[in-house]
Amino acid sequence: MAEFALIDLIRERCDATRADVRLGIGDDAALLAVPPGRLLAISTDTLVAGVHFSNDTAARDIGWKALAVNLSDLAAMGAEPAWATLALTLPSADARWVEEFADGFAELARRHRVALVGGDTTQGPLSITVTIHGFVPESAALTRAGAQAGDGVYVTSTLGDAAAGLRLSVPSLAKGGSKALNFFLPPHAGGGAEGGRGQLLERLHRPTPRIAQGLLLRGRATACIDVSDGLAADLRHICTASGVGAQIDADALPASPELIAAFGTDERRALQLAGGDDYELCFTVPEALVPELLRDLADSCCAATRIGRIVAGSGVSVRDAQGNPVELPKSGWEHFA
Amino acid sequence: MAEFALIDLIRERCDATRADVRLGIGDDAALLAVPPGRLLAISTDTLVAGVHFSNDTAARDIGWKALAVNLSDLAAMGAEPAWATLALTLPSADARWVEEFADGFAELARRHRVALVGGDTTQGPLSITVTIHGFVPESAALTRAGAQAGDGVYVTSTLGDAAAGLRLSVPSLAKGGSKALNFFLPPHAGGGAEGGRGQLLERLHRPTPRIAQGLLLRGRATACIDVSDGLAADLRHICTASGVGAQIDADALPASPELIAAFGTDERRALQLAGGDDYELCFTVPEALVPELLRDLADSCCAATRIGRIVAGSGVSVRDAQGNPVELPKSGWEHFA
Repeated sequence: MAEFALIDLIRERCDATRADVRLGIGDDAALLAVPPGRLLAISTDTLVAGVHFSNDTAARDIGWKALAVNLSDLAAMGAEPAWATLALTLPSADARWVEEFADGFAELARRHRVALVGGDTTQGPLSITVTIHGFVPESAALTRAGAQAGDGVYVTSTLGDAAAGLRLSVPSLAKGGSKALNFFLPPHAGGGAEGGRGQLLERLHRPTPRIAQGLLLRGRATACIDVSDGLAADLRHICTASGVGAQIDADALPASPELIAAFGTDERRALQLAGGDDYELCFTVPEALVPELLRDLADSCCAATRIGRIVAGSGVSVRDAQGNPVELPKSGWEHFA
Repeated sequence: MAEFALIDLIRERCDATRADVRLGIGDDAALLAVPPGRLLAISTDTLVAGVHFSNDTAARDIGWKALAVNLSDLAAMGAEPAWATLALTLPSADARWVEEFADGFAELARRHRVALVGGDTTQGPLSITVTIHGFVPESAALTRAGAQAGDGVYVTSTLGDAAAGLRLSVPSLAKGGSKALNFFLPPHAGGGAEGGRGQLLERLHRPTPRIAQGLLLRGRATACIDVSDGLAADLRHICTASGVGAQIDADALPASPELIAAFGTDERRALQLAGGDDYELCFTVPEALVPELLRDLADSCCAATRIGRIVAGSGVSVRDAQGNPVELPKSGWEHFA
């Protein structure tokens, strides 16, 4: 199968019709129209086989996740998704693999009306880079820089599920964070009930970008970030950018029933604080705005939970409900660490 | 060296100050302003070690070329460059390599006022994906689709130098096109004088995106493409998109003195027609507009040469000055071919 046929295969599945796509795939560049009064939000993320996913991960899940992690960045800015480009490097022209990859990518793209407007298909070790583009009204973007002492700290949905899913699959390798894979991981069942493990794996392989929630946070949250490297590490980015500190209540961290069933308290907390790959939104908000915001978020089918507060100072500290300090297990995932 | 330090290292060198960058690297997404009345042009290209460049290529040249091949796509649309994102996958955190890579990237970025607005640094087999963004006035973009029977076919500068440079370095491996590398190519001197070889290698490693020339073609060229996969293959894209054919005069193909010195006629023609990696512009233009356009191009220090004409029909045919058919050596580079 030739390169051009591969691109067609992907394009067929991803052709969201958008009036702002003046010229799509097929020329030297795509031509796009940004609506008046909107800024363009751009982010890019790469997934590498053996690093971000194991070699037995389903192609469909890889396609979904490659787009999801990028959409999650738009969600964290309060941006509305529009267009994506896809750079796909493949060891061989496996049409079936590409079809399944494209199906997973397109399933999520349709959900958010994302048009695939450009791409490059090259031969080499499996790796996927998506660059995502969205819109946000001038001055309405959520950044990491506006948190104020006194704000509450919140997260959407639950934390730790994705890292738990990985931990249960690959117990010996996934202690440092869910990006810490090595090559050729075997599929491997760990502890926990099979049904719960399925739920946790679903959260690992098919994260849900919180686009609708990001839009609801505009004009209300003072700072926002998506939790990709682990809550503590990502909240630390907010603290640094905003010049504040954060106090987290470890017992308030929202946990799924599956996570609670599979792990004891200490291990669960470690997964929630430093596991990463959650792709939930962590945000800060003045208390006066909280009740209505929480109601709106619950109406969007993704409730948020208060997990702590912003304080003067710097850094992130964690205590349990009794006020005892909880040690942070690890400072989030870093490549080349 | 940690991931964040790597990103800083690159950012420091690439911080073109542009008023349209409202928020650069350092948050979940960059925020950018597209000028009113302009469409956004987006393109993405990946370079993979062992496929697009050999492992002994200087990091500085890889940095330059990763941006150059993307800028070349903007040139072919008649777009003005603005912003780039960079996804860099590296086997190890080699600070010296990254510094040199960033220097090469930044040298070209400064030349075209390109701001680096986003990136991702991951661990894995060496690979670089750049996504480039530029502006073009509504209705002024150059596409592949407007060529008309009777138009002249032109190319900027000379053809075949990059493919010749590769051929001289790696004689046995580079017969099919200059992307046809394999892993771990040895540095290797071939025929030709050493000075000429240096010139040809320079054209291979540091292509010049024809941005200024693309801008001059707006409102004049009826179709345009950049020559990355080989002239014949790329001109065929124009023919397909425009519903026309093209007749090329093999003896009119512009050749550098270094290319002429190093190769006989047949081999030279093959490199010029199918070698690829030229990153020159191939365009079609109504004859009435030619004299002034050629003058303007020459004034821009990049003359263009008439190499044939657009005819009714389809496909690309090549003849020499005596009217004898010249067989096309290969249909351009394709991954997975």
